[in-house]
Amino acid sequence: MAVNLPVPLAGDLAPVAGVELGCAEAGIRKPGRKDLLLVRIDAGASVAAVFTGNRYSAAPVQVARAHLAAAHAQGTPIRGLVVNTGCANAGTGARGLDDARSTCSAAAAALGCAAAQVLPFSTGVIMEPLPLARLLAGLPQALRALGPDQWLPAAQAIMTTDTVPKAASRSLAVDGRALTVTGIAKGSGMIHPDMATMLGFVATDAPIAAELLQRMVRRVADRSFNCITVDGDTSTNDAFVLIASGRAAMPPIASEQDPRCAAVEEAIGAVALQLAQAIVRDGEGATKFIEITVQGARSPAEARAVAGAIARSPLVKTAFFASDPNLGRILAAIGNAGVADLDPDRVQLFLDAVPVARDGGPHPLYREEDGRRVMQRAEILVRAELGRGDAAATVWTCDLSHDYVSINADYRS
Amino acid sequence: MAVNLPVPLAGDLAPVAGVELGCAEAGIRKPGRKDLLLVRIDAGASVAAVFTGNRYSAAPVQVARAHLAAAHAQGTPIRGLVVNTGCANAGTGARGLDDARSTCSAAAAALGCAAAQVLPFSTGVIMEPLPLARLLAGLPQALRALGPDQWLPAAQAIMTTDTVPKAASRSLAVDGRALTVTGIAKGSGMIHPDMATMLGFVATDAPIAAELLQRMVRRVADRSFNCITVDGDTSTNDAFVLIASGRAAMPPIASEQDPRCAAVEEAIGAVALQLAQAIVRDGEGATKFIEITVQGARSPAEARAVAGAIARSPLVKTAFFASDPNLGRILAAIGNAGVADLDPDRVQLFLDAVPVARDGGPHPLYREEDGRRVMQRAEILVRAELGRGDAAATVWTCDLSHDYVSINADYRS
Repeated sequence: MAVNLPVPLAGDLAPVAGVELGCAEAGIRKPGRKDLLLVRIDAGASVAAVFTGNRYSAAPVQVARAHLAAAHAQGTPIRGLVVNTGCANAGTGARGLDDARSTCSAAAAALGCAAAQVLPFSTGVIMEPLPLARLLAGLPQALRALGPDQWLPAAQAIMTTDTVPKAASRSLAVDGRALTVTGIAKGSGMIHPDMATMLGFVATDAPIAAELLQRMVRRVADRSFNCITVDGDTSTNDAFVLIASGRAAMPPIASEQDPRCAAVEEAIGAVALQLAQAIVRDGEGATKFIEITVQGARSPAEARAVAGAIARSPLVKTAFFASDPNLGRILAAIGNAGVADLDPDRVQLFLDAVPVARDGGPHPLYREEDGRRVMQRAEILVRAELGRGDAAATVWTCDLSHDYVSINADYRS
Repeated sequence: MAVNLPVPLAGDLAPVAGVELGCAEAGIRKPGRKDLLLVRIDAGASVAAVFTGNRYSAAPVQVARAHLAAAHAQGTPIRGLVVNTGCANAGTGARGLDDARSTCSAAAAALGCAAAQVLPFSTGVIMEPLPLARLLAGLPQALRALGPDQWLPAAQAIMTTDTVPKAASRSLAVDGRALTVTGIAKGSGMIHPDMATMLGFVATDAPIAAELLQRMVRRVADRSFNCITVDGDTSTNDAFVLIASGRAAMPPIASEQDPRCAAVEEAIGAVALQLAQAIVRDGEGATKFIEITVQGARSPAEARAVAGAIARSPLVKTAFFASDPNLGRILAAIGNAGVADLDPDRVQLFLDAVPVARDGGPHPLYREEDGRRVMQRAEILVRAELGRGDAAATVWTCDLSHDYVSINADYRS
């Protein structure tokens, strides 16, 4: 039951020249569903990525990090991605690393490149071995399916507890030339990204130099996937990959000083933010989509800490689920954010346009019926003004419902 | 539905000479239940307390801190406590402070002492004004009920979403003299104490000097109430109070070097730990009681961080609710604990006696059926060995069930 999240239409997802996608039903965990994605990338493309900060990073994350570092160091291009759902290949020790490398070798053979030019990604249950034989057996089907118009099937192939495939596309004109940005993502639970979401793949045909692309992927992640939380749990498999195929006919963009950089980065950021918000809208059991903006902080980190404390509080999240304006819980969460010298008397709290609290207590104009009216909406803005400085931050989250417990209690069965 | 938590029997709670308790039905929030507690303390007693680290500390917490500091500075004794449930008097601004001070004045008049010799405590809904008139009107009833044998009614009078009153008592002999330690606590949700639990009151007749008592209350809190979590939310009203009435016929205990100190502190610690664990057993919606021990850490803080990350993970907690040995989620939580140089290959994980993981992957002897058998128990021990040092820590928590969501979605209605 996602919040205001329609299924994307295949026709709305523009192909990106130089990037082809193909899916297969490999039966990784359950039969009869797409669960394997192969991506073929042109030789002229730049590829950059950010990965989970979880110390138990999955075997494919470790292999992808190593392959990407080697590609950058040696100047050899990344030519393919292979993604499976149903098994995270995390907490799987030496065998997991072998399995991730074997996956790359097989995909490389199919794509006609070296194994180190392929990045592997997995998502699903942790601490179970990858069913390697089934995955490898599915690769020929994915290879045959490769095409530039397969973004929607690709979004479907990487879903786990997602109820809606997540995909977004933008076009822009730079120097009179049309450029495209299209991306997909998956994620619904274990969402508290640290560098990236569960899995996100965004491609553009703009020519962007590799080093600039690496800086750009980090900036974009920090303003999109790193600003969402569903349950405060950071996955072992988070990865966000940015592909610049360079197939658009224009000179390469190599630095932030190039005026084209800002325009392209803005479009990439818009696609990433739409995908990140789609993950929250489809958060496990979500019935509300909540934007939390904290202003008047001493630093952006402080603003993020306060916004995150509100977004993670189970008591705040269950109050949203109940549409109950038990808004003192938001004050308690602000007080828990670790800002040692916060003065509650300077804090102001708003719910949409309704003034809720100031001077350490309820706002004189606040009426319970106003709070109740806003809490019944499907999309709600929480705004806190700390009165300490000029820094601000925004995060997005959802409520905590019975269905979150059901989904996560039943996930493996 | 508390986990292995029988209702305490009045006869098991030994009176503490010098401490009398009295309850009333003041109708603070709902009629027909005990919701007001008055405690009279002998003039010769020492009183010490620790309070919440939440920056939105409640008005009664602010007043109690000030009164306690003044009492210590001026050598005047604390003579009374007044505790209400149903309203936290938190996030209530200047009016809340006035109400807390008026409560102290009225209780002081009843007890025959100064207002600054009374400590106020409140628990319940945040950001709603204290119904002061009803509270004050209930005080005479509480005064008439004062008696040394009222520990069980007192435990009942401070409950909110608690399903079982929480009380514990120990006796010990020191230098041939019998001493008593008896205490009560309340708490079920918003439990992630930072200095103390929601509310805990423990008294002994041992004579303990005020300065030693203050050090002792902090040490005891750090080994009991500060080692539990239900939902990771720290309340605005947490307080843990230790009363040493000094009525036992022996010279005062004034320092840690006094051999009697360790014996008394051990008994106080045992009562506090039993109360803290009772809060977890009665955690909102709890169906499982989970002890998490982390060993082989570089420092106690690191061990606590890892144990806390496991205890707070919603995904770990829903797996316990489902009795599902989806134990990779525990590895993911360990990886999320903020230990930057943790080496997963050195981590070992055990569930009760079952070896689960080592060398970054499943333990060779681990069988799913063993994990499933342990997960079905009502009390489960999770033990992680980090392989980095000699420090250890233990925390206690419960699972995350449908009832947690129901209780917190419906709390105010």
